[in-house]
Amino acid sequence: MPQIAHLECSRCHQTVSAETPQTLCPNCSGVLYVRYDLSSARGVAVRDRIASEAGTAPSAGMWRYRAVLPSVEPVTLGEGWTPMLQSKRNRNVYLKEEGANPTGTFKARGLALAVTMARHYGLKKLAVPSAGNAAGALAAYAAAAGIEAHIFMPKDVPIANHMESVAYGAKVTLVDGLISDCARIVNERKQAEGWFDISSLKEPFRVEGKKTMGYELVEQLGWQYPDAVFYPTGGGVGLIGMWKAFEEMEQLGWVAPGKRPKMIAVQSSGCAPIARAFEEGKPASEAWQNASTFASGLRVPKAYGDTIILDICRSSGGVALAIPDDTIFQSLLDWSRNEGILLSPEGAAATAAYDHLLANGYLKATDRCVLFNTGAGLKYADVIAEKLGLTAK
Amino acid sequence: MPQIAHLECSRCHQTVSAETPQTLCPNCSGVLYVRYDLSSARGVAVRDRIASEAGTAPSAGMWRYRAVLPSVEPVTLGEGWTPMLQSKRNRNVYLKEEGANPTGTFKARGLALAVTMARHYGLKKLAVPSAGNAAGALAAYAAAAGIEAHIFMPKDVPIANHMESVAYGAKVTLVDGLISDCARIVNERKQAEGWFDISSLKEPFRVEGKKTMGYELVEQLGWQYPDAVFYPTGGGVGLIGMWKAFEEMEQLGWVAPGKRPKMIAVQSSGCAPIARAFEEGKPASEAWQNASTFASGLRVPKAYGDTIILDICRSSGGVALAIPDDTIFQSLLDWSRNEGILLSPEGAAATAAYDHLLANGYLKATDRCVLFNTGAGLKYADVIAEKLGLTAK
Repeated sequence: MPQIAHLECSRCHQTVSAETPQTLCPNCSGVLYVRYDLSSARGVAVRDRIASEAGTAPSAGMWRYRAVLPSVEPVTLGEGWTPMLQSKRNRNVYLKEEGANPTGTFKARGLALAVTMARHYGLKKLAVPSAGNAAGALAAYAAAAGIEAHIFMPKDVPIANHMESVAYGAKVTLVDGLISDCARIVNERKQAEGWFDISSLKEPFRVEGKKTMGYELVEQLGWQYPDAVFYPTGGGVGLIGMWKAFEEMEQLGWVAPGKRPKMIAVQSSGCAPIARAFEEGKPASEAWQNASTFASGLRVPKAYGDTIILDICRSSGGVALAIPDDTIFQSLLDWSRNEGILLSPEGAAATAAYDHLLANGYLKATDRCVLFNTGAGLKYADVIAEKLGLTAK
Repeated sequence: MPQIAHLECSRCHQTVSAETPQTLCPNCSGVLYVRYDLSSARGVAVRDRIASEAGTAPSAGMWRYRAVLPSVEPVTLGEGWTPMLQSKRNRNVYLKEEGANPTGTFKARGLALAVTMARHYGLKKLAVPSAGNAAGALAAYAAAAGIEAHIFMPKDVPIANHMESVAYGAKVTLVDGLISDCARIVNERKQAEGWFDISSLKEPFRVEGKKTMGYELVEQLGWQYPDAVFYPTGGGVGLIGMWKAFEEMEQLGWVAPGKRPKMIAVQSSGCAPIARAFEEGKPASEAWQNASTFASGLRVPKAYGDTIILDICRSSGGVALAIPDDTIFQSLLDWSRNEGILLSPEGAAATAAYDHLLANGYLKATDRCVLFNTGAGLKYADVIAEKLGLTAK
């Protein structure tokens, strides 16, 4: 595992030491990326050893990529190396099943690494505003690490989000508002309470953990890029992490440069700040008013990384688009009934977006596409049951 | 992948052809096991190729063991090769996290193989009585295979069990009773309706799929047996499948014979037919009256394989025991708060049983033990939320 060389601002490229915990760029408040000396990981030989050495500790799950992750003893619950499922109706369509992660969502990857580093730095109290799933993941990894977790999330999250956070022993506050309101509360109180703010992109390691999705999807396709990647976009950090992974893999000589996938950010019509900014040709989004969608993970009125996401979508030849909730739910039923896969509402936004872009000619059926199901449909049992008209007990 | 040689009755050893779908032994109604010519899989060299060839299709998940599974094109949703997590408080205690499977439980393994074979045989309509989790798994794999699923389960199952079965498009009947009542209905109607009864042990392939848990736990411990395996026991078929795996692995020369783990069957005090029969020294259980436990997967008044389970527990030097629901829930909270792992109630019965057998001196803290979490705690979000006193929305 490589030593961290330094942290680098994604905007102004100032470098900062990783010896102590960092938040945003001290110069411009840009997002900090982890940079390593990766010379020992360069070349196809290292890449091809990954599979033969993986599977059990210390190389289980996403830690198979420990050659490109910080050399710190991990706090792990078995996250990563999730199934890549081929659609039964179109063998060029792959579903990346992130619901198989601990706590049932991709959030486990980012928080596994961020809590690993928090323990390494000796931090004692972590705080997070969440649309729901980051809350559960922080609560789990904090419990595993013996660190306090302070969680703020909307009061109308799915039952599972509230239940798991309480079960893991986190200090949970339900807020009459959205994740943006939760973030304001964390921001106001963190200094007095001694909390470290582990919000996505406001520290460098959640995005670093999520980058493993990029390595994984490429490895699972035989170290080839697909033509397009569909990513349900609330905070959009998974998409940012994957892009960083592609950049690293090219530098390492693990994939041929020059033909990265179109990156497609998918939102709900009920909360579509990034899709709107994309359409209007703007470099940044504006906060979405009265955000409302049953895809609760997409209920993020303003993502901190919006400019990075828009830039990635554009420079990759991708798009950002929004799908109405009804269409999302129809796609959820389509995939459960015809593929045997119960998507999260967010994942169903991605599958609906695929259908849309196929129908309008943006994509061909022969294009190789990876669609992210960012979480387990089971985590939304109460929400989906209600939409199916099943009587609550 | 090996050809099936024949099916063999576990009781009277009569052999039956696998050319057509089979149910129970036509001679004595015993459970049928799949037998292969495994000569091509014999030896450590084949075993050691498993890891290097595994990870992606056709060797992803439990299909890494395709050398000991029927050579039929699989219906797969990414089941198996679940995390083996070391307890943070005792490094000799391993938690086998079956919640990472499709549909969130170990039931996926058995139904992946049983539906694979059902499709191979051209069966069109499958029926199952279920305590809840087999229902969801059958519904998912049947949807993936384009086969009709007819499901009967108690009306008070967790919301997730009902929701997922409906979402996958199965024909769902909620029954005012237990799995035994559901089984009676399937039995009465199956002939007229043309349903194939895919109840556990009443056809040979669900137990065959579940045997992969035995291969996996041994491989994940470096091809060594642990000292004990704790298995939450409703129908108990996972335990039976693991025992078959151990037998095969010894015949194949993949593990040294003669020191199999103690097999420990764990039930709830609210439904403990096997634990009672074990204690009373009887070879078979009697149907449990008024079965009641929040560990809904353990609510099986009479398991079809009870004599096999009792025999395995006894001949391995293990035990069958029952834990009160309150103690189970305390162990669930203990593991979520101190390990960051949200167990299913059934899994928490196993962890509670471990604590009990450690306290009474049956086990030592230095004994290497594998505890099965048979399902994701998230699948019981409504049940656990209620026990935590969280207000329903």
